[in-house]
Amino acid sequence: MKINNVYYRTIWPDPENEKVVKIIDQRRLPYNLVIEELRTPEQAGRAIKEMQVRGAGLIGATAAFGMYLAALQAPEEDFDDYFAGCGRALLATRPTAVNLAWAVDRQLRAVTGENSPAAKIKKSFEIACAIADSDADACRRIGEYGLQIIRELSEKKKGGTVNILTHCNAGWLAFVDYGSATSPIYAAHREGLDIHVWVDETRPWLQGAQLTTWELQQEGVPHTLISDNTGGLLMQKRKVDMVIVGSDRTTHTGDVANKIGTYLKALAARDNSVPFYVALPSSTLDWKTDNGEDIPIEERSPAEVLTVSGLGEDLKEITVNISPPGVRALNYGFDVTPARLVTALITERGIVQPDRESIARLMNRDL
Amino acid sequence: MKINNVYYRTIWPDPENEKVVKIIDQRRLPYNLVIEELRTPEQAGRAIKEMQVRGAGLIGATAAFGMYLAALQAPEEDFDDYFAGCGRALLATRPTAVNLAWAVDRQLRAVTGENSPAAKIKKSFEIACAIADSDADACRRIGEYGLQIIRELSEKKKGGTVNILTHCNAGWLAFVDYGSATSPIYAAHREGLDIHVWVDETRPWLQGAQLTTWELQQEGVPHTLISDNTGGLLMQKRKVDMVIVGSDRTTHTGDVANKIGTYLKALAARDNSVPFYVALPSSTLDWKTDNGEDIPIEERSPAEVLTVSGLGEDLKEITVNISPPGVRALNYGFDVTPARLVTALITERGIVQPDRESIARLMNRDL
Repeated sequence: MKINNVYYRTIWPDPENEKVVKIIDQRRLPYNLVIEELRTPEQAGRAIKEMQVRGAGLIGATAAFGMYLAALQAPEEDFDDYFAGCGRALLATRPTAVNLAWAVDRQLRAVTGENSPAAKIKKSFEIACAIADSDADACRRIGEYGLQIIRELSEKKKGGTVNILTHCNAGWLAFVDYGSATSPIYAAHREGLDIHVWVDETRPWLQGAQLTTWELQQEGVPHTLISDNTGGLLMQKRKVDMVIVGSDRTTHTGDVANKIGTYLKALAARDNSVPFYVALPSSTLDWKTDNGEDIPIEERSPAEVLTVSGLGEDLKEITVNISPPGVRALNYGFDVTPARLVTALITERGIVQPDRESIARLMNRDL
Repeated sequence: MKINNVYYRTIWPDPENEKVVKIIDQRRLPYNLVIEELRTPEQAGRAIKEMQVRGAGLIGATAAFGMYLAALQAPEEDFDDYFAGCGRALLATRPTAVNLAWAVDRQLRAVTGENSPAAKIKKSFEIACAIADSDADACRRIGEYGLQIIRELSEKKKGGTVNILTHCNAGWLAFVDYGSATSPIYAAHREGLDIHVWVDETRPWLQGAQLTTWELQQEGVPHTLISDNTGGLLMQKRKVDMVIVGSDRTTHTGDVANKIGTYLKALAARDNSVPFYVALPSSTLDWKTDNGEDIPIEERSPAEVLTVSGLGEDLKEITVNISPPGVRALNYGFDVTPARLVTALITERGIVQPDRESIARLMNRDL
């Protein structure tokens, strides 16, 4: 996607130095476009942990490149142990993100098969690039499938504005390109459909207010920022035609872990007969967990709840405390929307009902 | 209630100058305790409109004292017209607040019956004081009834911690004293029951983060601040035993207008079999509106969504912008929770089912 009309991905190997991987520091957006260099697996882990990069697909891609950086640093005599240790360290950074485990696992399996350190490094680089490319490609195809849903709603409304609500940022910043929840939105906008996006600000980290709005601005998609409390009323007032969100982990039975607050929007959608879609590449599917309640929910620093960061009057980035000194806060990163509240999953292989049989069939898996 | 161990109400006539009414400027809390003087009905209107005072009961009491200030300023030859005009101006400040209309109406009816301007002024003062006193008394009794519910939950948990979730500030700052939703909490705490309060931060205005936390700190009630997105997960995890919220207007059929986002918590409570209570003095009941969907919903400035105010590093109050320049925002102040999602209403006359018949019976009204 484009920033000020220049094409970017969210992560890429430096074409001038193949030992360096570049990312956009998302903590500095939307106010500053800062490109960071990753040179070690520790730097990759820190970028994930501290949310310089975030979002299902991009966490996976960053972990994949982090494993490549690990391969570059691995001692010849002790390659596999060092490599596996780096994998474990990366896994610990964000427990809810299934793409992370998937990317690390794929690197471990592929690289172990190679003989020489040089072959392992080469393989690791190829795998990282392949994961990034296939993430971008999956998101592009999610856009094509999701576009069909928006097109139908547009036809039903006789070309009237289709109002889409989204929570958090499942945009191209959360993946390598296109995004999951936003990919159908971009596809619809490019086709000239009349759409408008309600953007949940998404406390505590404000991914909606700071990242989704910025993405939609760059692409020229009409949108309005709302507090996370507002979506229910908008649905009651019939001002929402569909909800699309992303997912950090979806069980093969259709339960959806996504940014905290997603479940509340799914309940409101159900109560008001608004269709609720989850867009995800199949790399986000968790084939081991049967029940969404068993997904580990990341607990993050209370400081993210107790403070808000933004731009002060002098256009400097500043942080304010929003409550009296001494207040205790709790900060869960995700909640789980049970499959019964999900209208359908939009994947790169097609649109599918959120149940074990349908998902297995779509993915050519044995039940 | 007490601030730093000194007893305060939220509004009071100055004992040294009966032409002055005093309020706490709630926009400056929790960082600064600023007492403001109101000398004209316009100042009272502005204090309501700009949320120096807010909350169902306090808006009513401020309007009542605003009418007293109007009586003080009314020209002798044109008293009733001037007085009624001030009433209309006060009514326009916050359309969703039914206590406002109730207080203005009560002043108009009482004062018209008096003959001389002096008698009208005297009557108006008496009515304002009576409205404030009866608001405080109603809230105290709400505490007694609500305490029974908390006591039962505590017994059911064999004295284990009762976790109570609340949204916005329906505390003593929202009334003249005690609060509605908080009054049972304070009563339970004073009785020595083991309770803990989950405080929704309540974007965009952050009444939870800035006012409810501060109130609970002053009273020593254990509490934890959470983002508005978190309550659903906490209920899924069985970490919430009951929800208590206040109301800005409740129809005589049991539909509850309250701070935006309340409806989402009611949906989550229902989905997880958590009891959902609404605490309100009967002055908050709307006897004219049958359907909650017909309650006018106040739309406030987008700036409240686009910015967050708090305390900067240098301990100065500052405001930050949370999204890129040019983003549009929408800011509805309330939503309506349908009666079907409400377990019961807690009023100063007792606990009542949220339906037309039960409410009419409790209030000795003809159906």
